Amino acid sequence: MALASQPSVSAKNEGIEECAELVEKMMNELGIRTKVLRMEGSAPLLYGEMKSGRSDKTVLFYNHYDVQPVEPIEEWRSPPFKPETREGRLYGRGVSDDKGELVSRLKILEAFLEADGEIPCNFKFCFDGEEEVGSPHLDQYIGKHKELFKADAVFWEWGGVDEADRPVVQLGVKGNMVLELALRSLAKDAHGKTSAALPSAPWKMVQFLSKIRDETGRIMIEGWYDDVEKLSTEEMNVVQKEPFDAKEYLRVYGAKGFLGGMTPSEAKEALATMPTANISGIWGGYTGPGAKGIVPAEVHCKLNFQLVQHQDPDKLFALFRRFLRKTGNSDIEILWHRGEPAARTSHNNPFAQACIRAGRRVYGKKSVVRHSASGSGPMYVIAKRYKIPAVSIGVSAPDSGMHAPNENLRIDLLEKGILWISETIAGYVNGPS
Amino acid sequence: MALASQPSVSAKNEGIEECAELVEKMMNELGIRTKVLRMEGSAPLLYGEMKSGRSDKTVLFYNHYDVQPVEPIEEWRSPPFKPETREGRLYGRGVSDDKGELVSRLKILEAFLEADGEIPCNFKFCFDGEEEVGSPHLDQYIGKHKELFKADAVFWEWGGVDEADRPVVQLGVKGNMVLELALRSLAKDAHGKTSAALPSAPWKMVQFLSKIRDETGRIMIEGWYDDVEKLSTEEMNVVQKEPFDAKEYLRVYGAKGFLGGMTPSEAKEALATMPTANISGIWGGYTGPGAKGIVPAEVHCKLNFQLVQHQDPDKLFALFRRFLRKTGNSDIEILWHRGEPAARTSHNNPFAQACIRAGRRVYGKKSVVRHSASGSGPMYVIAKRYKIPAVSIGVSAPDSGMHAPNENLRIDLLEKGILWISETIAGYVNGPS
Repeated sequence: MALASQPSVSAKNEGIEECAELVEKMMNELGIRTKVLRMEGSAPLLYGEMKSGRSDKTVLFYNHYDVQPVEPIEEWRSPPFKPETREGRLYGRGVSDDKGELVSRLKILEAFLEADGEIPCNFKFCFDGEEEVGSPHLDQYIGKHKELFKADAVFWEWGGVDEADRPVVQLGVKGNMVLELALRSLAKDAHGKTSAALPSAPWKMVQFLSKIRDETGRIMIEGWYDDVEKLSTEEMNVVQKEPFDAKEYLRVYGAKGFLGGMTPSEAKEALATMPTANISGIWGGYTGPGAKGIVPAEVHCKLNFQLVQHQDPDKLFALFRRFLRKTGNSDIEILWHRGEPAARTSHNNPFAQACIRAGRRVYGKKSVVRHSASGSGPMYVIAKRYKIPAVSIGVSAPDSGMHAPNENLRIDLLEKGILWISETIAGYVNGPS
Repeated sequence: MALASQPSVSAKNEGIEECAELVEKMMNELGIRTKVLRMEGSAPLLYGEMKSGRSDKTVLFYNHYDVQPVEPIEEWRSPPFKPETREGRLYGRGVSDDKGELVSRLKILEAFLEADGEIPCNFKFCFDGEEEVGSPHLDQYIGKHKELFKADAVFWEWGGVDEADRPVVQLGVKGNMVLELALRSLAKDAHGKTSAALPSAPWKMVQFLSKIRDETGRIMIEGWYDDVEKLSTEEMNVVQKEPFDAKEYLRVYGAKGFLGGMTPSEAKEALATMPTANISGIWGGYTGPGAKGIVPAEVHCKLNFQLVQHQDPDKLFALFRRFLRKTGNSDIEILWHRGEPAARTSHNNPFAQACIRAGRRVYGKKSVVRHSASGSGPMYVIAKRYKIPAVSIGVSAPDSGMHAPNENLRIDLLEKGILWISETIAGYVNGPS
C-alpha cells in the first residue's frame, strides 16, 4: 500500500506535505473533486466531494492521514513504513489508524461506482493532517468553510469489531479537559524544622484536591453536573445490554474491585455515562531513597477530566476557577492543556439504526451499541456544528496495536468493514428494507 | 588538627576504626580512663572518665567522632580532610560538627588540670561513632552500661551563638517520626478512559492525607495531643522573649506569610512547642511535559512528624495505624524509617541556669534561651534514662556550614566556647555566686 509507505508523523512534521499530495492524487484518480485547505502553521486539510444523481442526502467521512510516531522502533518486527503482510494482517504504522480506515472509505466509493456507475448519495471527505496532535486547527477550518463541509451524517474515523468479533457501533465520545496545577509556597525547599510555621505546598494541594472528588468518584465542584442530561431509560437499557466482563476487566488492570465499591453494572454505566476527574500525575519534594526532612517549595499535579454530552469545557473551566477561588486556593496556578466537548448520537437516530442493522447483516451477529467511547476526539467539531449524527464504524480489530509498535490491519476486516459501511449508506438513503 | 585530618564517614564506614583509636589516644594522653565499647555491626562507642577530688557531681559530655559525607566534593575550596585556616576560620569536614566540639570538651579538662591540677567535678565522656547515621545503637549501648554513663547533667554535642553573636542555650530537641506511605491500586498504569470505574491510588492517598492535618497545621489524628504538656506561663514567657525576626524569616524562605495566617508571635511559639506533620515528598503517575491521560497504578508519600516532650513515637505510630484503619485506608502500606522522642530541660533547672549565667558573663550579652531546637537527635537516650538535665551549648557559629561543603569553625568561638562551658561547670558545682 503506497499510502502506508509514506511517513506522515504530524508530531515531528515528517512527510506531511508529501502524504497530503499522495492522498489528493488517490482521490482525484477516483474522480473526487478536491480542495487543499491551508492555514498558517497547520498541516493541509483535504476536502473532497462527489455528487450523486440518486439522492440529495450527503454523508461526510472524517479521517486523517497523519500517524503517531513509530517509537519504540526496536520493537517493530518489520519496518514501520514498509508495510508487510503476515498471517492475514498487514503490519505498518498507520495501517489501521487511520490510513486503513481512510483507504476503506475510498474503496467504498470505488465499489459503488464499479457496481452501479453511480454513488447512492453525495459523498464528502474531510481528511485531517493533525489528528494525532489533537486537531488544533480543525474547528477553525470548518468554521471558515461552513458550507463546504455541510452534511446530513458523518462517519467517524475509526471503528470495527470487539474481542468476540461483534460489530461495534460507537455513538459518541466523551469530552475532556486537561489541566496542570502548580503551587509554589516557598522560594526554595526549607529544612523540616520550619514545618510548624511555614506554609506547605503539598499540604495545601492535597487539601484542595481532596475537595474536588469524593470517595465514590463524584465531582464536588459546584455546578459540575448542571448540564449533564440523564440518559433515558431506553438509552440506559442500551448501555446495560453492552457486553462487559467485569472479572476480566479487573484482572487486566490488577484491581481488587471497582472505584467506591461499584457493582459491575454500575461500573459499566459509569464508564459510558459519567463525567470523571482524574489525577494523572502528582509530584513535589524529595522522592529519592530514605528520608529527607524538608518542606517542599512547590508541588505539581496533572488533572484529566472526562466530560459527557452537553458539558462545555469553557464553562467547566470557569467553574473550576471559581471553586479554586472560593476554597481559598487562588495561589494555585492553572495551566490549561486542552478541552474538547463530548459528542453523542442517539441510537434511535435513523443513521445509527442503519449502522446497527447493516452490522448485523454483514457479521451475522447483533451489533454492540456503545453510547460513548471512553476515549475522546474532535467529533464535536462536526457533529455539534451541523447538528448531525456521527457514528464510528470501521475496519479495525481491538488488537490492531494503534499508537503501538507492530500496528496492524486484519485484511478480512478491511473487506467486511467496507461492506458494512456500504450497506449502512444504502440503508440510510433508502430507509429500512 | 590531627583529628580533622582523619576521615570518619559513618555512612560509608570510612576511617571509623582509625578515628576511634585516635580519639582514645587523645583521651589517654590527658589522663582520661577509657573503655572502647563494641557491638556487632556497630561503630565503637568510646567511654571515658576522670574522677575529681573536689565534688561528687558528675557531668557527662556527649559528642561524636563520625562526620557527614563530603559530597559535593567539587564545592570545597580546600580538601575536606586537610584542615586549612583562612580569615579566622578553620575549614574541613567535621571541624564544627562534631570534632571541633569534641576537642573543645577535652580542652576544658586540660585547662582545669593546668590551672588547678584538678577538675571541679567528675567528668564522663560518651563519644558516638554513628551519630550522622542516626545513632542506631546508642540506646542499646547505654542500656547495657547503665552505671557507666550515670551522671547528674549532660552537655549535648552542639551549640554556640546566633546570628547576632548572642550565646544560645538550647534546652531540648523535638522528637521525630519518619514514615513512607505507598498505595498500589492497579498492577500497571491504566488508560485514562478507565477512570470512571477503576480505583485511583492518587485520589485515595490525597483523601487520606487531607484528613491528617487541617489548614492551620493541626494534626487531626485522634489522640495525637493526649501526651502533650502545655508550657507553663513562665516557660511560654521564655519562648516569647526569644528574638525572632519574622520578616527576615519569611524573606529567607520566600514565603508570603506564616502557615494558616499565624502571627509572628504564634509562629515563634509553634516552632518551639508544636508537634507537626509534614509531607516532605509525594509522587505518582506521569510527571513529564505535556499531558498523558492515565490512572496511575501507585502513589508514594514521605511524611515527617515532629514530636514534642512526652510524645512517644511508638504510641503515635500505633495511633497512626489505627487512624489509617478507621478511615478505610488499610491498603496503604507504611514503611517506618525512624522515630525519636523529644527531650527538654526546664530553664529553671540549676544546670540550665548555670549555662545562662555563664553565657552572659563570657559574651557580655544576655543568653538566648530556646526550649526546643527545631532539629532532633538522640538526646532523649541519655536525658530521659537518667532523668538528668541536658543542655546544648558549644563552640559553633550559625554559618559553620554543618553537613555542607566548606564546613568551618570560628577560632574565636572555640576559645569563647571553652570558657563558657568551663564557667558553666564551675557555676553548676559551686552554685550561683
